Amino acid sequence: MKIGVFDSGVGGLTVLRALMDRIPEADYLYLGDTARLPYGAKSRETVARYAVSSAKFLVAEGAEFLVIACNTASALALDAIRDAAPVPVLGVVETGANAAEVSSATRDVMVIATAATVESHAYAAACAARGLRAIEKACPLLVPLVEEGWIEHPVTAEVLRIYLGELMELAQKAKMNPDTLVLGCTHYPLLRAQIERAVPDTLRVIDSAAVTAAQVDRRLAAPRGSTEAAGTARFFATDSVTKFRALGSRFLGRAIDAVDLVDFGG
Amino acid sequence: MKIGVFDSGVGGLTVLRALMDRIPEADYLYLGDTARLPYGAKSRETVARYAVSSAKFLVAEGAEFLVIACNTASALALDAIRDAAPVPVLGVVETGANAAEVSSATRDVMVIATAATVESHAYAAACAARGLRAIEKACPLLVPLVEEGWIEHPVTAEVLRIYLGELMELAQKAKMNPDTLVLGCTHYPLLRAQIERAVPDTLRVIDSAAVTAAQVDRRLAAPRGSTEAAGTARFFATDSVTKFRALGSRFLGRAIDAVDLVDFGG
Repeated sequence: MKIGVFDSGVGGLTVLRALMDRIPEADYLYLGDTARLPYGAKSRETVARYAVSSAKFLVAEGAEFLVIACNTASALALDAIRDAAPVPVLGVVETGANAAEVSSATRDVMVIATAATVESHAYAAACAARGLRAIEKACPLLVPLVEEGWIEHPVTAEVLRIYLGELMELAQKAKMNPDTLVLGCTHYPLLRAQIERAVPDTLRVIDSAAVTAAQVDRRLAAPRGSTEAAGTARFFATDSVTKFRALGSRFLGRAIDAVDLVDFGG
Repeated sequence: MKIGVFDSGVGGLTVLRALMDRIPEADYLYLGDTARLPYGAKSRETVARYAVSSAKFLVAEGAEFLVIACNTASALALDAIRDAAPVPVLGVVETGANAAEVSSATRDVMVIATAATVESHAYAAACAARGLRAIEKACPLLVPLVEEGWIEHPVTAEVLRIYLGELMELAQKAKMNPDTLVLGCTHYPLLRAQIERAVPDTLRVIDSAAVTAAQVDRRLAAPRGSTEAAGTARFFATDSVTKFRALGSRFLGRAIDAVDLVDFGG
């Protein structure tokens, strides 16, 4: 089984990491569209165009299953990708909403994500389809803070305190009683400990990487022998492979040996 | 006189604003390559490819003079743009270095900018060519803080305190005596007041927008009548024109009525 994982950058490596832990025998292709990142502030049309060309590339390289590890692309372009790719496609918005459905007893959930993901209201729609009410908040400073490496840092703690305080105030005003917080961006799992410290203990934090890996595992129909050898992983990026290797290792949690440069033109 | 101003996004509108104040009778074309921003984390090859296509577009639209208001493009792609464009080209790195040369008595200057601008060492090279020593520091959180609208905000004050403190420590270790701080990113003029509060009074802060407008004014050879009517301004963006209008007005300091969408493919 060859699984293609796509993200605009290195954030999706948190999803790949969870997949490799969960389904070690699969072969993986990871594409980071780093020349055109971030998708978070771009329009639906532009994101769809970028995501479709990336998905087609992974299928051409042999991917039999696609994981869209980019929240923005999952939110804005999942239908376009499904139309263009002749293989099963799973996006992190639906896997996050699925996990929220299982987690929430009050049926009220909160979602933090990039501006474009929030503006698309993709999480609210996916939650509504599962009988949940969702309140969403854009947290545009969290990705740059993670990429600056300010994980355990007082500025990050203060930014989280402000963002999460505003979010819980919004929930209160809407007379909601949320018991679940979905991390709607693949960078956020790196802040999970800080986020859990900033919210009440009663709030369950769902990170897209772990829940996506679990759901891909369930979706793969073929029975797999437990004695199979570990699979391979290949990495592609549309911009500097040196930067991808350096920054990406932090997200993947292990060294990245080789990255191939891909040119989509433009 | 038709002047083309190019930036990867809306930040260059601080330069356009200074130009319109200084040379109101000129006609302006502004292009923000918003579909491919930010350039700050991308490689030299990618930035040059993007900047050259943008410069060619402005010349095709009639620009007789090009101002590269994007520090990253000025740092990484000025030669490529000059090779491709048959009109005079001025970039904000050289105008900033020119202003530092005039400002500095100690011949030691400090520069803050994006990661790619700093990694290119374009300011250090431009300063060295003018007999100045320059110490550079990447401040990747400042652009997202400005775009979040956190201008007069305690988090921004704290981030500036950290960044500028580290920079002054670096200068001290290098036994330098800097008297000038160059804001090497077009977003930073919006933080000028906060930056001036965070540094000693003896440090002169140079913002690229104002000094670039002054130098373009001097470079325009033709004498211009002071009674001429105010010129026009046209705006182009490669992604959502709605977002460009909304965010851009903050940088330009006035409303932006119409923005044309440009598609470079890719």
